[in-house]
Amino acid sequence: MAFKYLRTVNFADTDGAGVVFFANVLTFCHGAYEAALAAEGFNLQEFFSDRGAVILPIVAADVKFYRPMYIGDHLEINLQARQTSDFEFEIDYQIYKVENLDRALAKASTKHVCLDSKKRSRLKLTTEIQAWLSKSS
Amino acid sequence: MAFKYLRTVNFADTDGAGVVFFANVLTFCHGAYEAALAAEGFNLQEFFSDRGAVILPIVAADVKFYRPMYIGDHLEINLQARQTSDFEFEIDYQIYKVENLDRALAKASTKHVCLDSKKRSRLKLTTEIQAWLSKSS
Amino acid sequence: MAFKYLRTVNFADTDGAGVVFFANVLTFCHGAYEAALAAEGFNLQEFFSDRGAVILPIVAADVKFYRPMYIGDHLEINLQARQTSDFEFEIDYQIYKVENLDRALAKASTKHVCLDSKKRSRLKLTTEIQAWLSKSS
Amino acid sequence: MAFKYLRTVNFADTDGAGVVFFANVLTFCHGAYEAALAAEGFNLQEFFSDRGAVILPIVAADVKFYRPMYIGDHLEINLQARQTSDFEFEIDYQIYKVENLDRALAKASTKHVCLDSKKRSRLKLTTEIQAWLSKSS
Repeated sequence: MAFKYLRTVNFADTDGAGVVFFANVLTFCHGAYEAALAAEGFNLQEFFSDRGAVILPIVAADVKFYRPMYIGDHLEINLQARQTSDFEFEIDYQIYKVENLDRALAKASTKHVCLDSKKRSRLKLTTEIQAWLSKSS
Repeated sequence: MAFKYLRTVNFADTDGAGVVFFANVLTFCHGAYEAALAAEGFNLQEFFSDRGAVILPIVAADVKFYRPMYIGDHLEINLQARQTSDFEFEIDYQIYKVENLDRALAKASTKHVCLDSKKRSRLKLTTEIQAWLSKSS
Repeated sequence: MAFKYLRTVNFADTDGAGVVFFANVLTFCHGAYEAALAAEGFNLQEFFSDRGAVILPIVAADVKFYRPMYIGDHLEINLQARQTSDFEFEIDYQIYKVENLDRALAKASTKHVCLDSKKRSRLKLTTEIQAWLSKSS
Repeated sequence: MAFKYLRTVNFADTDGAGVVFFANVLTFCHGAYEAALAAEGFNLQEFFSDRGAVILPIVAADVKFYRPMYIGDHLEINLQARQTSDFEFEIDYQIYKVENLDRALAKASTKHVCLDSKKRSRLKLTTEIQAWLSKSS
């Protein structure tokens, strides 16, 4: 699954050094993930609620920062999601300014595991999420 | 109900002008509200969930800013909560630097209404929240 | 000055009650303000920095909530800005779901004052901001 | 340098699944870093501004999540900072509930590099930050 997401940096995203606060870059990435799900018809409210049979929490995340991001910057986030085991998937994110798609501003990844929402034991990825992951872009 | 709450300003609270982003001052106030409930034994997870019979959403908020707040500032928030009708209560907040309790940095208020969580119709405030509101400090 | 701004609700905007955290609605409004400035050619990084001769801090804000906002909601924010004195302007915001422009989800306003960035004394609004405020939509 | 930091989870930190939004765990960690600097007398406003000769941006971060965090949880973050080259330092964070210091809820790390604030070229870590890093707890 590959997806392209656009996001403008807001003032609230920046910190007292005048650039995007580091943790907010992961928040931008999660927005790309949400948009990629919504584009395939997932109901985000159900998907991210903890009330269904299955939850897909993030169990790990990492991010590398190459260049600062400023208020008003138009970002393009390229997302690549892939199944990594029966129970898990990973998403890679590359963040660019739309005016310069040659040099990434940051790269990030998140790792997601499928759990039974009550017992919190591992479950096989649902067919819906497997279909989403294997979709050719 | 009166309560005193301490909060240190973090870097993530500030914006590109080097001061606390205006909306975050209301977030600080909500933290004071949470602490004032926890201090009286309310289970915050139940209280703020939407799964019980009753919810108490904020229906209005306002805030006035007198002086900027900076990273590392030690804030004291003085909270005063009072019942304003069978169905509603209001909370006033005064925010100071702990080193200078004579001049408020900001003042805010939030208005809360008691609703049936399913029908979203108005309900009388629960006895627990009435007791909390009428507690002398 | 009137402006229309679109914003999708992200998971990070919501709280443990499954709806947008109240203070974040003001953050959405500020995003509309930023977009309305950018649309007229303001350099947002300069405008919101505290390094120029002039700053335009928010001195008051208020917000009323009529209906909850959920992850994935497509919001339209209608902004109306007007000069209210030689030194001040106010912005009103009405927030709708794009699918239902008849009933506002929330309404908000922010009050901005023009200050000398060093002395923090009041200044007349700059000609640029006056032009922005008086622009017919 | 080792430091212990306490933080209560606020409602604003949680998301629609009723737990702390993943990126906010890194925000908590940064709060621990700020407190560890303040405890040694660093002026946080100067330190995190981009106006001095030197900046220390985060160039990488990662985080692993073992158990969810809920509103009202009292967290203890144990921070360990160490110099990793002439130009860089890393900080490891372990996040616990104060009631259960045997099992971490999450672990994170951040990597910081010393840069000339104008040229953005690498600089040797200042003596002040070296002293902070080598301080025995």
